[in-house]
Amino acid sequence: MPGRLNERSVIAMIKEMQPPSPRGVLGIGDDAAFVPRAEQGWLLSQDMLVEDIHFRKRWATPEQIGAKAAEVNLSDMAAMGATARFALTSIAIAPDTPLNWIRRLYRGVQAAFSPRGVVILGGDTVASPDKLVLDVVILGTPSQTGPVLRRGARVGDRLLVSGTLGDSHAGLVLLERRHGRMTSSQSDAPLLRAHLEPKAQVELGVGVAPLVHAMTDISDGLAQELVEVIEVSGLGADIWLDSLPTSPAMRALAERLGEDAIRWAVFGGEDYQLLMAVDPSHVPHICTMSRQWGIDVTEIGVVTSKGGVRWIKNEEPVEMRGEGLAFEHFAH
Amino acid sequence: MPGRLNERSVIAMIKEMQPPSPRGVLGIGDDAAFVPRAEQGWLLSQDMLVEDIHFRKRWATPEQIGAKAAEVNLSDMAAMGATARFALTSIAIAPDTPLNWIRRLYRGVQAAFSPRGVVILGGDTVASPDKLVLDVVILGTPSQTGPVLRRGARVGDRLLVSGTLGDSHAGLVLLERRHGRMTSSQSDAPLLRAHLEPKAQVELGVGVAPLVHAMTDISDGLAQELVEVIEVSGLGADIWLDSLPTSPAMRALAERLGEDAIRWAVFGGEDYQLLMAVDPSHVPHICTMSRQWGIDVTEIGVVTSKGGVRWIKNEEPVEMRGEGLAFEHFAH
Repeated sequence: MPGRLNERSVIAMIKEMQPPSPRGVLGIGDDAAFVPRAEQGWLLSQDMLVEDIHFRKRWATPEQIGAKAAEVNLSDMAAMGATARFALTSIAIAPDTPLNWIRRLYRGVQAAFSPRGVVILGGDTVASPDKLVLDVVILGTPSQTGPVLRRGARVGDRLLVSGTLGDSHAGLVLLERRHGRMTSSQSDAPLLRAHLEPKAQVELGVGVAPLVHAMTDISDGLAQELVEVIEVSGLGADIWLDSLPTSPAMRALAERLGEDAIRWAVFGGEDYQLLMAVDPSHVPHICTMSRQWGIDVTEIGVVTSKGGVRWIKNEEPVEMRGEGLAFEHFAH
Repeated sequence: MPGRLNERSVIAMIKEMQPPSPRGVLGIGDDAAFVPRAEQGWLLSQDMLVEDIHFRKRWATPEQIGAKAAEVNLSDMAAMGATARFALTSIAIAPDTPLNWIRRLYRGVQAAFSPRGVVILGGDTVASPDKLVLDVVILGTPSQTGPVLRRGARVGDRLLVSGTLGDSHAGLVLLERRHGRMTSSQSDAPLLRAHLEPKAQVELGVGVAPLVHAMTDISDGLAQELVEVIEVSGLGADIWLDSLPTSPAMRALAERLGEDAIRWAVFGGEDYQLLMAVDPSHVPHICTMSRQWGIDVTEIGVVTSKGGVRWIKNEEPVEMRGEGLAFEHFAH
């Protein structure tokens, strides 16, 4: 029956949207997928998006939801300095979902994967009682110098961050306030895009891999990701709050709502930018490199030997608290 | 706060339950996991279990649910003749779930993985609005002769199946009828176990890998899996219904309920047994081998050149229809 939602029709649709699997690779259709030997080994990341936790159908198009699921995984690969090659996707779908809605979702996935040459090799397709769940696994190959870990930071390293911070959180604030019928001004558009259509810093991550000591993406917000980078090394960090890169649109919205733009930048989350710990001598080169992809990279602090993060404003340490703002998966 | 459910506490708990990652492997804690080069390449399978679709909390203990999630994935590896080595798990959890419930779930996962030396290297931990979702990925290495595919069957091959068929479906029928307060007799216990505590045929799958032309697990029921084996090869099959292996407990229950045991065996699903296409000369050897693991393997038919499956009873073709019985994920 055309358009009828069942496991085989969904799998057939996903398969049709794929290019043929490369030689020596076994794609969709058997009990398991197969990838051949990779000289440098394989990196694997897995990210799950759940309806009404990570996205809402009334806020985002199916294409946006699919693309976001792919991008958040591509961001993990970028953070390891790795090149994404293959993917697996598990999807749980409510039985009343139109097949065409699922097709549009996978069009979004493909819009992120195809230009990067990432091929879906398998996964699982099941029913859900109500909410949509999409779990994506990416396989990637590290650079010649191996995977870039969080744990490599050294005292004196400069901390760099790509792009601007807090835009995605600002977009989320806008979407949530729409219930209150606040109309969006044109300057809000980039904030909504930042939240609904995040882009992984794929080229930057691969490009800087041989030059950085440690790297992570800041999907959970700068504050939390910083702690994870310095805790594993038993180190500390000074962060210069005045240096944090923020967009005019984000600052304008925060001001309009009487909120603190710096707190959004520090705790907001879901920006999918990269945080790098770099020897000071490499900073100029990385800034120049990144500009070739149209990305600004900003020096925001330094790795110290003291435990914990010191937030510095006007050359004085200040306290930063994220209560009621920190992106906490289980608090949503 | 002890026992509080948040992402970090769940990840820390999963990590604590793991043995340390083997040398050269990067486990839980970075943006992605890393596995080194495997000479024969890697096999990957992914299976998602969704609350109230694949399991019900009032029917199964958390240990049983966790173990089942692991076993259904181990079954996919067994069906490729592969040895499971590593796993990723994504879990979506309702915020009111006690941390101890999640610990018990992962104890079930470990009960299946630890004896097989499978180590969890990463995954994702997120919130769910209500239902629990557990998505498991397994990485395994194929045998020296490479992965065993569904598509290798040849005309004249004998079709073998491990264990007994229809027990899991019978167990599901029992669980569903409990609403009607039908008490279970002692003979029902193995049927409930078959449904709630399936065991993957790990040793058998690896053991027979060099000897079989094609293999699959019959998680979706014999009828559907057979079609998938012969369709990819453009072949057919004769199945001798009188030869299908069934348990006395399953036959007794079917009789008690006025149901057809053979239909349960053909369409039931979730038995996690292996279906093999084998050169006739290898049949005796495989039957002998399997007995060393306490598993019976039964010859149930032959691969033919005609398209489609012919069901044979008393040497006559009969029609088999699975309506209202076939395990269809989206129909649940």
